[in-house]
Amino acid sequence: MTGRLVDLNCDLGEGFGQWTLEAADEDLMDLISSANVAAGFHAGDPNIMDRVVRLAAERGVAVGAHPGYRDLQGFGRRVINARPEELINDIVYQVGAIREFTRRHGVRLQHVKPHGALYMEVAKDEDLSRQLAETLARSSPETLLFCMGASITHDVARAAGVPVVREFYADRDYANTGSIVFSRKMRRLDPQEVADKCVRACLEGKVRTVEGEDIDIAFDSICFHSDTPGALAIGTAVRAGLVENGIRIASAAEVLKIRNAA
Amino acid sequence: MTGRLVDLNCDLGEGFGQWTLEAADEDLMDLISSANVAAGFHAGDPNIMDRVVRLAAERGVAVGAHPGYRDLQGFGRRVINARPEELINDIVYQVGAIREFTRRHGVRLQHVKPHGALYMEVAKDEDLSRQLAETLARSSPETLLFCMGASITHDVARAAGVPVVREFYADRDYANTGSIVFSRKMRRLDPQEVADKCVRACLEGKVRTVEGEDIDIAFDSICFHSDTPGALAIGTAVRAGLVENGIRIASAAEVLKIRNAA
Amino acid sequence: MTGRLVDLNCDLGEGFGQWTLEAADEDLMDLISSANVAAGFHAGDPNIMDRVVRLAAERGVAVGAHPGYRDLQGFGRRVINARPEELINDIVYQVGAIREFTRRHGVRLQHVKPHGALYMEVAKDEDLSRQLAETLARSSPETLLFCMGASITHDVARAAGVPVVREFYADRDYANTGSIVFSRKMRRLDPQEVADKCVRACLEGKVRTVEGEDIDIAFDSICFHSDTPGALAIGTAVRAGLVENGIRIASAAEVLKIRNAA
Amino acid sequence: MTGRLVDLNCDLGEGFGQWTLEAADEDLMDLISSANVAAGFHAGDPNIMDRVVRLAAERGVAVGAHPGYRDLQGFGRRVINARPEELINDIVYQVGAIREFTRRHGVRLQHVKPHGALYMEVAKDEDLSRQLAETLARSSPETLLFCMGASITHDVARAAGVPVVREFYADRDYANTGSIVFSRKMRRLDPQEVADKCVRACLEGKVRTVEGEDIDIAFDSICFHSDTPGALAIGTAVRAGLVENGIRIASAAEVLKIRNAA
Repeated sequence: MTGRLVDLNCDLGEGFGQWTLEAADEDLMDLISSANVAAGFHAGDPNIMDRVVRLAAERGVAVGAHPGYRDLQGFGRRVINARPEELINDIVYQVGAIREFTRRHGVRLQHVKPHGALYMEVAKDEDLSRQLAETLARSSPETLLFCMGASITHDVARAAGVPVVREFYADRDYANTGSIVFSRKMRRLDPQEVADKCVRACLEGKVRTVEGEDIDIAFDSICFHSDTPGALAIGTAVRAGLVENGIRIASAAEVLKIRNAA
Repeated sequence: MTGRLVDLNCDLGEGFGQWTLEAADEDLMDLISSANVAAGFHAGDPNIMDRVVRLAAERGVAVGAHPGYRDLQGFGRRVINARPEELINDIVYQVGAIREFTRRHGVRLQHVKPHGALYMEVAKDEDLSRQLAETLARSSPETLLFCMGASITHDVARAAGVPVVREFYADRDYANTGSIVFSRKMRRLDPQEVADKCVRACLEGKVRTVEGEDIDIAFDSICFHSDTPGALAIGTAVRAGLVENGIRIASAAEVLKIRNAA
Repeated sequence: MTGRLVDLNCDLGEGFGQWTLEAADEDLMDLISSANVAAGFHAGDPNIMDRVVRLAAERGVAVGAHPGYRDLQGFGRRVINARPEELINDIVYQVGAIREFTRRHGVRLQHVKPHGALYMEVAKDEDLSRQLAETLARSSPETLLFCMGASITHDVARAAGVPVVREFYADRDYANTGSIVFSRKMRRLDPQEVADKCVRACLEGKVRTVEGEDIDIAFDSICFHSDTPGALAIGTAVRAGLVENGIRIASAAEVLKIRNAA
Repeated sequence: MTGRLVDLNCDLGEGFGQWTLEAADEDLMDLISSANVAAGFHAGDPNIMDRVVRLAAERGVAVGAHPGYRDLQGFGRRVINARPEELINDIVYQVGAIREFTRRHGVRLQHVKPHGALYMEVAKDEDLSRQLAETLARSSPETLLFCMGASITHDVARAAGVPVVREFYADRDYANTGSIVFSRKMRRLDPQEVADKCVRACLEGKVRTVEGEDIDIAFDSICFHSDTPGALAIGTAVRAGLVENGIRIASAAEVLKIRNAA
């Protein structure tokens, strides 16, 4: 049972220079308890990072680093076949950048969550998961790692003693494996359907897969993407659905603390 | 009198991808007490940063962040007329990246030193100097700031309570103002002449300017550049000159500590 | 007298990767007779260029290259103090890229128009203007160069035999010098006022400056920017104003041909 | 039989900004008959391109465009899983850039040769090979395409009517399939062994594979890489070996013309 307490996270700061996504960071920030801040490789620039981290600090939203492949043009949704050591260095670089902005604005870095294609590559690559987990365990043992419950990352990170936050994806389809189905571009979704799916996942611990079956799903945080068309409406509907069903939204760190105490 | 104790610093990690400068980081590292590690905007990539910071940690060389303009092609030697706020955000981003590699390798970030044209712009811009000093004072009051003694940065940073390290430039010409003469490309220098200039500056506190006069110069650290043609020979000659003249080389942090205790 | 025939040009393709500006290229394309296609340094990527050039070819809109400073983050609105030779090489590179897409889609490259801060730098720098004019005259003597009538570029290019197209800026303020007032970010304008200003400039050859005076203005093409807030409404109003006042809109090449024949 | 006439090609201009490879473009240029000029995505910047194309024009070396993956850090040796349409657009962009520099320096673009991992991906991907061949056939039917004889690119391009130049790789190992063995980093080779291998391939049409067998190999051009350690010595030895054995070195265009006339 996942129950009546959940984190709600969203990627923020995913513009670049003068470009922004459809949904404004300011509006999305009011809906969530954890923000994954783009760190410059797939999206985000230092001006945006500074603004988003300051905003999160002001509104009490927990901040995470959201490192991606070095591919602005592909928005981090294209795999680059780099060696694991290279990708870990890319992650360390980006995590440090976001952490420095949290220092500047007087808050702590709550978590790390790889972005897009990198998230999916880590999820299925044991060597990459292990190197990431060991790096986090050594450099910042208090930092949470976001991942899918059904991923190699999850198992490897737990074994390495890294505190993990299992995610449920509001705006992605699930396969029978328990993994999400990756896609470079999202279609427009119905916000109410998305919200119902989340509420059901919280209350029943079930999700319907693309193969048409119900599978068990356990998680600590719900994610929606700022670049999904209609992101603001989706986030608004999900938050409303959770609140109406008595599910409390709290930061991932708080969710873990309460779970661990139980 | 500057005296018989000085830091010796050099920019390291100023390759990119498979490109390197003429002098190897490994060789230069043996000569110096403080390394300014390129942070990705004018040079340096995460793989290089990881390697250089690890190397510094292993050899007991203090690590600094060396943020530059976002201009790989121009090697950070071309001014970009960005607003001060933008440049500060660029610096915060790059400082955080290097700091994270120091966390990874179990050492502390000793200092921040802007690179190339950015260093010169900060040196003469009060607003930029003030914003940089305030940012450092708030985010990391223990971090040293490298600058010229004859610069606005120096005065503003001291006033803001930021610990400053005054530099002497081995491989740059001086003007009567006490500032170095900026150039995008360096000519080949005679290593022994460079070493003699440094030794004289340490022992007599004097340097000959391009206008042909001797001026007083006070400093805590001597800098030479890894991209100056013949950098390894220059660094070797400077180090030898200092040692032969009984001038002890120590990290900037140690130099400041001893000075402040005196 | 500028009269009853004018080109209407707009910057297009100024997104990057998955980011786009507020106004869609498809909609703006229907309003104009010449498209300045972003060439990858300040905005634009090869996928966007291919789409925009194909669209222009299909709709009979003339294509120009719109090279900018290499500064995606600053959208080419920040000056980089590079040497003229470097900037010319940057322009040649970008012009070639757009020209290749015109080859692919079976049309000719009509013109070159530097973007943003680069346009303004060329306008006031004689060396840069001369090198640009000579490069165009040698590589592609048939290619038109867009510039302000009140610019060094205009005088130098004419002297070098480069066919020049003088622009009138719908969405920029004018100074008494006849030059536009550069700004990194535009405020929201009233479309009808903009249209009235353009119609008056065509019919009377006058524009009101920021100093409050009327000055004479002669031009061959009217420009509005795709990143000006409300660009689509502005372009729509300008086009309607021209048509309603009997001013024919034709490509810059056609405007020059008719003028030269007159 | 490949015989007594061959093109000798090398990648040039593979520095970036102030970085260069070990071997100078100026020295390598004297050895070869065709230069593949890096086009900015994996290496090369507009200043370098201008210098290299001018140099080739002065010395009568034929110029080709050498487009790569958009990955400066990985030097184009890492696959990015982009869609074929995206990669073709990247190639068109880069080809146009180099072609513009040939216009500037009064020569023609002789050929196109994808770089590194992109070359290998095209070699084995039918869709990508077909789109590339069709694009070249439409935009510039006179431009030669360099590829391995044992590649899908070769068969598809010939079928599409694109003139193809089959390459022999001096500094790469061969597999029994007739394809080279791709590697991100090259070991140091013995120049004389490399030269002997090339001479034998020319005179006998045979090469020894990594599996230890001799296979037939037919080709029009010999390639060596400017980033192979010891590139200058290798190129010098290969050229000397060819000349000493009475094998004439001519541009790929000339080789094809003579072959086709035979």
